[in-house]
Amino acid sequence: MSTQPEHHNPQAGQRTGVTAPAGFRAAGVTAGVKPSGNPDMALIVNDGPDYHAAALFTRNQIKAAPVQLTKSLHNGTFRAAVINAGNANACTGEQGMADAKRTGELVGTALGIDPADVAVCSTGLIGDLLPMDKIEAGVGALASALSTDLEAGTKAAEAIMTTDTVIKQAVYEGEGWSIGAMAKGVGMMAPSLATMLVFLTTDAKLPSAEAAQEALGAASGVTFDCIDVDGSTSTNDTLIMLANGASGVEPDAAEFARAVHDVCLDLTRQLQGDAEGVTKKVAITVTGAATDEEAKAAARVIGRDNLFKCAMFGSDPNWGRVLAAVGMAPVTMDPTRIRVSFNGHDVCVDAAGTPNAREVDLSGEDIDVEVNLASGDGKATVWTTDLSYSYVEINSEYSS
Amino acid sequence: MSTQPEHHNPQAGQRTGVTAPAGFRAAGVTAGVKPSGNPDMALIVNDGPDYHAAALFTRNQIKAAPVQLTKSLHNGTFRAAVINAGNANACTGEQGMADAKRTGELVGTALGIDPADVAVCSTGLIGDLLPMDKIEAGVGALASALSTDLEAGTKAAEAIMTTDTVIKQAVYEGEGWSIGAMAKGVGMMAPSLATMLVFLTTDAKLPSAEAAQEALGAASGVTFDCIDVDGSTSTNDTLIMLANGASGVEPDAAEFARAVHDVCLDLTRQLQGDAEGVTKKVAITVTGAATDEEAKAAARVIGRDNLFKCAMFGSDPNWGRVLAAVGMAPVTMDPTRIRVSFNGHDVCVDAAGTPNAREVDLSGEDIDVEVNLASGDGKATVWTTDLSYSYVEINSEYSS
Repeated sequence: MSTQPEHHNPQAGQRTGVTAPAGFRAAGVTAGVKPSGNPDMALIVNDGPDYHAAALFTRNQIKAAPVQLTKSLHNGTFRAAVINAGNANACTGEQGMADAKRTGELVGTALGIDPADVAVCSTGLIGDLLPMDKIEAGVGALASALSTDLEAGTKAAEAIMTTDTVIKQAVYEGEGWSIGAMAKGVGMMAPSLATMLVFLTTDAKLPSAEAAQEALGAASGVTFDCIDVDGSTSTNDTLIMLANGASGVEPDAAEFARAVHDVCLDLTRQLQGDAEGVTKKVAITVTGAATDEEAKAAARVIGRDNLFKCAMFGSDPNWGRVLAAVGMAPVTMDPTRIRVSFNGHDVCVDAAGTPNAREVDLSGEDIDVEVNLASGDGKATVWTTDLSYSYVEINSEYSS
Repeated sequence: MSTQPEHHNPQAGQRTGVTAPAGFRAAGVTAGVKPSGNPDMALIVNDGPDYHAAALFTRNQIKAAPVQLTKSLHNGTFRAAVINAGNANACTGEQGMADAKRTGELVGTALGIDPADVAVCSTGLIGDLLPMDKIEAGVGALASALSTDLEAGTKAAEAIMTTDTVIKQAVYEGEGWSIGAMAKGVGMMAPSLATMLVFLTTDAKLPSAEAAQEALGAASGVTFDCIDVDGSTSTNDTLIMLANGASGVEPDAAEFARAVHDVCLDLTRQLQGDAEGVTKKVAITVTGAATDEEAKAAARVIGRDNLFKCAMFGSDPNWGRVLAAVGMAPVTMDPTRIRVSFNGHDVCVDAAGTPNAREVDLSGEDIDVEVNLASGDGKATVWTTDLSYSYVEINSEYSS
């Protein structure tokens, strides 16, 4: 299982973030939305020549006002994205929608662009109205602070954090072109506080906005869509890619798709590693499923099972919980031939335990779980975390 | 919302448990399956004249050997049920099935009845073989200890406990007939340790086994099927009702159905109250759904949401988490008209917060949550618990 991008550790690199590609400016400022006084507004501006945009939004039926707005505006073109943290502007009724629109209009005016080309994103507590006076002043400060410097991208990445403990950025360096990215989220998804927001920028020359959307959708399906920290899905999740063609280089479509995938996977792992309460990073790979989709569904059911997660916290190779969990997945499986391995060691073959199965060492920070459903060639990996602390005290100690 | 049986608190009553009705014997003994040395084997015997049996089993695709066996034997007649705690005999392959059959044969021999009329149930850790020498000695001890005394029923109820902290029994007193019951489970469902096992006995004269099955199925659908403590479902869940007609009284079908429902609801609340780590008992009622089934599905999604459960632990009226959770339920809803109340106080109307919504007092042990989806007349209640302690330290303090 290859779960690490092949290129490098983007966090350790010098060039990373949304201003790494040519033709993008960014800023992060403190507008006063967060009670903590930490930076809480960010802006990304695409200076062209192209303004292709791809976007994906939460599947939650309850969508925050900025998600409703930005989704309605999304037609393949965005020239800017404005983000506030500290307030989700979700479940805020008509005033909330008016506030989201007003935020976009403020940015449009400040930048001299059509408000219909401004993506608006929010993250934070559900149910409170945005403090529009602070938002208005914040937009002004953002416009003044815009810069193509790498540091400006990092400031933007810092300003979108909520309970994130680390700034999350990534980069892909192609031949004469690049992709930059930033993300926030601490648990995909923690609906009232840990919305996942992801922004990718690229100076690659793309044939169309559809090409960007296709690459983003494909990558998201096997990266962000496969993080499952707490089974919850935010009202505010938003994933946007802006492509300006400023490099003049049109990468091969396959290379571009792979680059987008690698950046998304990198951010996925960063989100997983910073999830609330995480002490273990658990990769659950389901193989032998009827289809890739069924594999993903089965892996997700395991990843959401609190008892399994408690066992992981306790470094307890309690494979019975894996079987009990996967048995409830609405997918095809052969209950008599299921195999489970922990960190490459078979612990269950043909639905029965192996000798020494309970001795497998799960004490490390990373745990790989593989489950073969013996029903086809479908495969998927879901990244989750343990469930730490006391709920756990009961559940993690039972079989040891 | 009426969630309490109308009759009485069966735990406080003198007559309760599976030997309360006429014509049933029971026993509980220590066979040595549990390392703790606590009682771990139980037997219930129906002495007729009828031997009607109703049964429901786990929906998990991974079924323990005793579940596979008992399900295959279930044809409307059981004369006895033997239960061991401390070992689930799940994921134990062919030997496990042979051991389950052998257990039934031992009981059949000891009682002089057909082994095909013996239900076999196990609960405990998944993946270990049953210690058959201890099981064999245990069956002998059980046969010797059988009694119609109420105390014998209580000993049986004690012997099926795993991490249960209290014995769970119930009774319904009809006019000249009764239903007795016992249950175990600490969290419906904790797959590797907290299997739910429930046994009802009745001396009511029933027209057929089908009548018993119908009443049990209907009751279970709105009681046991609506507990959701951790979203997990055991490999071993079993629910059995034995009816012998020893009273000679044939109750009205509607009264009998209501009596079975009340006993099941009573045990449901007992299971909820003894769930692992519980500090809050949370009843989630969804109204205004397209159908009752959709209401149950929506309530279940809320009840499984860890962030909602953490908020309940923190007595935090964070209604945004309710909306974010229910928004992911695969059911019809009107996102603009959803209403939420906590303990009878509206906190969200038309998907927006009410004034003082964050001031609602949730400090008590019982919390009622009602969610109206504004899409029909469907209604259901799911009983869940909070998610206590540290995972929670992060999530329960965010909005306060």
